[in-house]
Amino acid sequence: MEPLFVIKIGGNIIDDENNLSAFLKNFAAIKSKKILIHGGGKIATKIGDKLGIESKYIDGRRITDEATIDLVTMVYGGLVNKKIVAKLQALHCNAIGLTGADANIIPATKRPVTKEGIDFGFVGDVNSGQMAVDSWQVLLQNKFTPVVAPLTHDGKGQILNTNADTIASTIATALSKLYDVRLIYCFEKKGVLENVNDENSAIPLITKEIYQQLKSDNKLFDGILPKIDNAFAAIDSGVKEVLIGHAHDLLQNVTQQTTGTLIKGS
Amino acid sequence: MEPLFVIKIGGNIIDDENNLSAFLKNFAAIKSKKILIHGGGKIATKIGDKLGIESKYIDGRRITDEATIDLVTMVYGGLVNKKIVAKLQALHCNAIGLTGADANIIPATKRPVTKEGIDFGFVGDVNSGQMAVDSWQVLLQNKFTPVVAPLTHDGKGQILNTNADTIASTIATALSKLYDVRLIYCFEKKGVLENVNDENSAIPLITKEIYQQLKSDNKLFDGILPKIDNAFAAIDSGVKEVLIGHAHDLLQNVTQQTTGTLIKGS
Repeated sequence: MEPLFVIKIGGNIIDDENNLSAFLKNFAAIKSKKILIHGGGKIATKIGDKLGIESKYIDGRRITDEATIDLVTMVYGGLVNKKIVAKLQALHCNAIGLTGADANIIPATKRPVTKEGIDFGFVGDVNSGQMAVDSWQVLLQNKFTPVVAPLTHDGKGQILNTNADTIASTIATALSKLYDVRLIYCFEKKGVLENVNDENSAIPLITKEIYQQLKSDNKLFDGILPKIDNAFAAIDSGVKEVLIGHAHDLLQNVTQQTTGTLIKGS
Repeated sequence: MEPLFVIKIGGNIIDDENNLSAFLKNFAAIKSKKILIHGGGKIATKIGDKLGIESKYIDGRRITDEATIDLVTMVYGGLVNKKIVAKLQALHCNAIGLTGADANIIPATKRPVTKEGIDFGFVGDVNSGQMAVDSWQVLLQNKFTPVVAPLTHDGKGQILNTNADTIASTIATALSKLYDVRLIYCFEKKGVLENVNDENSAIPLITKEIYQQLKSDNKLFDGILPKIDNAFAAIDSGVKEVLIGHAHDLLQNVTQQTTGTLIKGS
């Protein structure tokens, strides 16, 4: 099958003009088919502050009220997304900026109120079984490069805020029936670190066996566990491999894979 | 050739929730291929005021400085565009929201500083000869309904603010080689009025001959002249006919054409 790169970038790249330019240059240089998923970055909070939109949290998780969903629709779906698209076009990459509502590419359901009564507001959980694979195919086969904001929709007219990591793994999974998908999480560290204080301690390979060992040795910091679990879930659903590491190193070596942490089933 | 409706709506529809819902219901019901171009509406000014972005004008024309282009990219390209897309999806219309940067569908050039030294800032004049007809074809043939924000790009990474009427006529013209294009301008009046104070005085048909007569009789108010000139320019470039009128009436009768002002070459 033809290779497909599904690449997720977070706020640390989006918030820094130089980081973003360097990343996009590397991204545009990838010759294979590719999809970019971006997070939001601090700019949404900055603009929200100016607009008097208060960030609300319950148990450390952000609540997306009506003012906030409008804010992130503007900032993620408009400002951040279209700036990336325009920059990629300048690099001769035929980017097309989308949310999950566009062409219904990521259908989702508003998260139900928890049994403890917590309402996260306009947050969407992706309906992974209903991904419009046909629409993705049309875009990819016609040499468009989708640039996806972390927004989905409920099919009833409501935009929903959705975690970008989850969107990336869901897209990767849905398209693994048609492509050899490599899922890449670009973040601020050089990979999954064996020693969180040593930037050069990236673990080159994590299989399920190695993961069990690392966990029982308490070698992994808590923050990375959901990312690795997400990665294995994607692999169990057909994604070929997952790469986690620093944006700059990763994409320069994306085909040789000499850097970052590679996650494989076995 | 297959029919294609290119429909432009302005702020008076976008700013009113009920107007917008009624319009989108009629729009979604059009069975032919269709493209929607929307203006900005007052919401950009409202949000700009809250963000402390001052609207600057020279000779009555708005200047698009850096803060303003970011503002309209957010509001037109994000908030307004994606809300329309989500609402159309709920009406089972497979909308895909785009700016001119996406898939390079509307290449433009930053307007040069005038000889009087006026710099309009980040305003784009469409490069009508370079319209990516292939990309439009891919979208339309695959049954996507493009929803276009009034934004273009310069191909060098810069988003540009562009008049929605002009975008509509440029798209209509570019696609008239492939489709029987009917261009529809929805606005707040029932058509081109013979008596500006009488809402029921819409002129049913304007040909070039009739237009000359109306102008020499001083029967048209100044504001409508650019719209009619724009319409004739589109017709001279291959668009079949142009319809101007009130959103609600027009789309209910879009196939019978029993309302509004029809503009035809002869």
